[in-house]
Amino acid sequence: MLARVLAQLSEASAVELGPGDDCAVLRHEGDIVVTTDTMIEGPDFRLAWHDGFELGWKLAATNLSDVAAMGARPTALTVALAVPLDTPVHLLERIAEGLDAACRALAPGCGVVGGDLGRAPVVTAAVTALGDLEGRAPVLRSGARAGDVVAYAGELGLAGLGLSLLFAEGLASDGTASADAVPGLWAAHPEVLAAQLAPAPPIPLGIAAAQGGATAMMDVSDALSIDSERLARASDVQIGFSSALLERGFGEQSGVVVPVEAMLHGGEDHGLLATFPADVALPAGFRPIGTVVEAPKSGSSVGAEPVAAHMDTGQGAGILSLDGTALVSRGWDPYIVQYPGTA
Amino acid sequence: MLARVLAQLSEASAVELGPGDDCAVLRHEGDIVVTTDTMIEGPDFRLAWHDGFELGWKLAATNLSDVAAMGARPTALTVALAVPLDTPVHLLERIAEGLDAACRALAPGCGVVGGDLGRAPVVTAAVTALGDLEGRAPVLRSGARAGDVVAYAGELGLAGLGLSLLFAEGLASDGTASADAVPGLWAAHPEVLAAQLAPAPPIPLGIAAAQGGATAMMDVSDALSIDSERLARASDVQIGFSSALLERGFGEQSGVVVPVEAMLHGGEDHGLLATFPADVALPAGFRPIGTVVEAPKSGSSVGAEPVAAHMDTGQGAGILSLDGTALVSRGWDPYIVQYPGTA
Repeated sequence: MLARVLAQLSEASAVELGPGDDCAVLRHEGDIVVTTDTMIEGPDFRLAWHDGFELGWKLAATNLSDVAAMGARPTALTVALAVPLDTPVHLLERIAEGLDAACRALAPGCGVVGGDLGRAPVVTAAVTALGDLEGRAPVLRSGARAGDVVAYAGELGLAGLGLSLLFAEGLASDGTASADAVPGLWAAHPEVLAAQLAPAPPIPLGIAAAQGGATAMMDVSDALSIDSERLARASDVQIGFSSALLERGFGEQSGVVVPVEAMLHGGEDHGLLATFPADVALPAGFRPIGTVVEAPKSGSSVGAEPVAAHMDTGQGAGILSLDGTALVSRGWDPYIVQYPGTA
Repeated sequence: MLARVLAQLSEASAVELGPGDDCAVLRHEGDIVVTTDTMIEGPDFRLAWHDGFELGWKLAATNLSDVAAMGARPTALTVALAVPLDTPVHLLERIAEGLDAACRALAPGCGVVGGDLGRAPVVTAAVTALGDLEGRAPVLRSGARAGDVVAYAGELGLAGLGLSLLFAEGLASDGTASADAVPGLWAAHPEVLAAQLAPAPPIPLGIAAAQGGATAMMDVSDALSIDSERLARASDVQIGFSSALLERGFGEQSGVVVPVEAMLHGGEDHGLLATFPADVALPAGFRPIGTVVEAPKSGSSVGAEPVAAHMDTGQGAGILSLDGTALVSRGWDPYIVQYPGTA
């Protein structure tokens, strides 16, 4: 089984020794970054919606984006996969193909260097990604300063729209995920399905942001509203969003009209949220979406929408609207997919 | 939950940035080794037998031993933990305590630098361990040469005896694992319980072996018979075991009489199997257990016990007995725990 899975994998360029010994051996130039993320059938994905290739792709993409968000070059993944005994080997091969294809497409030179295969009641995958800072300082969440420009690179809101679409049209009559509608949904709405099932975060832009002077950066996995609040709190600032800038930058993506609410609350985008000094040019691929504002000393912002009500706002760090956009998440349900001509 | 778990962790000495950002950041001097291992409730452990502390300890120990087996210094662990929704936070805290305690005891300077907490039907833990080769070449499985001494460091057979004991006396009448007998077993047979539930592999001896000229090395996780066959095949040699040497080196450990069969087939020892040129002194902690023999060109060995029948012997690489020890595994069941005075 392992041999058939390993046959899908290309060699990572930092590898001095690949799978097969107690450990893989890697060559790195600078400090190492490391991150781990788990995806479990049920809470994190449904095999009725994801085929194995897409699952492998998403496993790689979501970890690569964490490496990119430090300003590092992804070098290697390890994959711990545990599956039910009746899992077809073909599913494992497709997962390996997806992992490998995502590395080649999104982070050339990176690859799977090791892993582990075991038995579990549901498909369980834990991926660890390593990256090389190549002598650069890591870009942390805590470096945003008042006056910085808030910028974003990647798709924004499409993945959440894709999930809403799957929940709206991809369920069987008993409420469980069904594969029946998936081919039709792919045919009709490929952009939002791809964003949800096999996202393509702009991995090289993490290095571009670091080289371009980014003061803080993180990848947006839970939702722009939630993750930007984390960055704001780590930096002790407020992140002010402009719905006009969000509309201009991300109102139409791949021909899909994306409402600001989906951008803010959709989640699973895996693009890069970064802050830059106001006097530097944004690296190509980043678009401005707001401004970093000094955190008020009291617990609430002044002269603007209050910080998101569902988060403890600490010392006043948080997020606010510069022009009246509702920032409080209303969850997954209310998004309506608007396609050109159907709005 | 995460805050309570993170509170259990000490900082690893290679850490430049610990948990809380997209990635942890680590400083390394030489090439990096990386390994991943998963433990899943059911196939890999039973919470009726392991408490959380022991589970965390074993998670760390089993991964640290893979790093040691390359001749590297363990620097960092990442831990992806997924648990049922009704899991008490206390269990997670105990797992974190065990992870941390094992790092401090077995590999000082190493620690947990990041992780992920999610939901799964059973307790599922994937640990990735990193190590620093500090300028040394990695010790691979493939370097054993005819004439080398085969040596082992660590406990051997005790962990298998512990598992046999738990299966013999730690089951409820319906055959499921029961916690009822565990305190009594700990009181009566602490050595074999500890070896099974919270093993203490000799991590620093991995570096000692590398510096002492080891030509090949691996950690013994499945069983000495199975893992030595892997080393033999990787090196295209035969590993010849001497039951006299096994008896002399490991026949009594911590007061427990260990049969050669348990040494060969017990499994989960996590000690270090290494080969050394015959003219170098074995590093302290390693004891000789056999000799590396040239692989015969035909498919079977000559003038000795045939290679283990359950493995495909490839070009004749494999294991053999130098003095009539039975090398073919008979599985877990037949071991009988022999204590001094009761044999």
